[in-house]
Order: sequence, then C-alpha cells, then structure tokens
Amino acid sequence: MLNIVLHEPEIPANTGNIGRTCVAANARLHLIEPLGFRLNEKNLRRAGMDYWDELDVTTYIDFDEFLEKNEGARIYMATTKAPNVYTDVRYEPDCYIMFGKESAGIPEEILVKHKEDSIRIPMAGDIRSLNLGNSVAIILYEALRQNGFAGMNKEGHLHRLTW
Amino acid sequence: MLNIVLHEPEIPANTGNIGRTCVAANARLHLIEPLGFRLNEKNLRRAGMDYWDELDVTTYIDFDEFLEKNEGARIYMATTKAPNVYTDVRYEPDCYIMFGKESAGIPEEILVKHKEDSIRIPMAGDIRSLNLGNSVAIILYEALRQNGFAGMNKEGHLHRLTW
Repeated sequence: MLNIVLHEPEIPANTGNIGRTCVAANARLHLIEPLGFRLNEKNLRRAGMDYWDELDVTTYIDFDEFLEKNEGARIYMATTKAPNVYTDVRYEPDCYIMFGKESAGIPEEILVKHKEDSIRIPMAGDIRSLNLGNSVAIILYEALRQNGFAGMNKEGHLHRLTW
Repeated sequence: MLNIVLHEPEIPANTGNIGRTCVAANARLHLIEPLGFRLNEKNLRRAGMDYWDELDVTTYIDFDEFLEKNEGARIYMATTKAPNVYTDVRYEPDCYIMFGKESAGIPEEILVKHKEDSIRIPMAGDIRSLNLGNSVAIILYEALRQNGFAGMNKEGHLHRLTW
C-alpha cells in the first residue's frame, strides 16, 4: 500500500481533496502536525470530504514521531528544489511520498538529509507551483502506474457501459 | 503542445485549478459552453487564478464549433465508463484530452462515437470519482511523461538548491 505524507498542511480544502485521492488510489494518508486547521466534522464537510470515513489516516505530533512509528519507511520528498524528476524514481509498492506545506514546502533541515530521494515535477516557465492536491495526484498515480495499479479496478466498469 | 478540453464545466474553482495546471504543463485549454459560471475577473480571482493571463484558452459555443475549429484533432475522452486505462494509450504530442462536467461526465451521444479513444483512471473500491482537477493533472502529466516533458524544465532549478 502506498503512503502519502503531508508535512504541516495549511489549507483544509487541499487535505480534504488529497484524502479523496488517497481513497480512490487505495493509499494511506499521514498528517504531521501542526495542521493549519482542525480535523473536525465541520471542516471536513466544507471540504467535501464525505469520503473521510473510508480513509486510512494517521496523525503525528511531529516529523520525529512519524519516523519512530514508521521505522524503515522508504521516503521520497516532493520539492521544487529537487534535481530528480519524479518519473525517474522506482517507487516501491509500500513507499512513502512526502509533501510540504503549501506556502513553503518541506523544510531544508529535512531535505538536506534526503537529497538522493527528493523528486520534482517538471513545470513550464516560471510558474511557482502546481496546486498541492494536483502534485499529490500526479506523483501518486505515477507510483501506481509503475506498480501495475495493483489491487485496483483494472478491468473497467464494463457493466456500466451502455454503448 | 497538448490540449485539455473541458465540456460544459460547472464549478469555477475546478476550471481555475485546471487553468493553473495547464500553465504549469504548457498545455492549451479549450472550454465548451455552456459553462456553469462566468469567466469574469471576480470569479477568476476567487478561484485563485492569478495565472489566467498566462493561459492559452479558447471558448466555444458548443462541441460542434470545437470540432470545426480544431479540424483533425486527435481526441481522447476521459470517462469512468471507458474500458481502456489511460496509461495504455500513446498520446501524440499535440493531442486533445477531453473531460466532461463534474456531475455527469461526457454525454453518451458523444462517447458512442469515440469508444476506441475513451480512457479511464483506475480507482479502488466503489468511490465515485477523483476530483476533476486531479483527473486532468493525472492524465495530462502521463501524456507529458510519454512525450519526455518536451519544452519543460527538465534540468531542475539547481540554482535554487541551497543544500
């Protein structure tokens, strides 16, 4: 099972959206505090997260607790500062892909220890970045593609075809 | 240049988000009316679309006008009803990828003429769908990957690396 890690996410709609993607992709979500919002019903409902109950989600008080509780985790760090393109990495079927906060990304003191495992999404021109939810979707589905969409519906909803 | 086509999109925040992705991916955006919103400054600002000026976007009064003005376009139709997985298609560098409205997808009368070119994103369980913006990002970046991220920044912002 693939794992998405959000380090101190700020915007509830993004985390809600990413939770929905994780449910669709059969991935686990890990949230590292502090969060920029409360994970309460009102915020989740606002973010359209009627899928939250189906989500495998764990919250940690900080990055150290995350590391302790996921010992031996193979972690890839998504950052605009990485030299490696995300498609050049071979994602293990149970690896972790981590994303930083919307305003600042993953802190340099963490990145410096993971140079080799940092990955970047190519972008045109000088646009600052993709939306966080889209960045997660793009890299997560590349990891799924490489792993043959294992455990997912690969046959298509043929019974739903009316043409 | 790749092309994203939105058929009668309903939610302004989604179209704004997709516009941002198109700018990042150096793709053109085609909007087929009726839209569920007005493309005015207020709505674009609300959707966080400070990138809209940089976007190559064209609007059409209906699907027929889109076909007339893009003669010979190679169009792939993204739909949950497709038997083909989106990664099984070979995307031409100037192809078109079309997405239907959030509530209903692409109408069956259009899909029926494009059976062979319809594509689907595998999902786990019985979740209804990914967010429209995420679906666009996933398929667009797969098409970019297949085309070697041509014209994009593949070398990394190495000058921004401080570690």
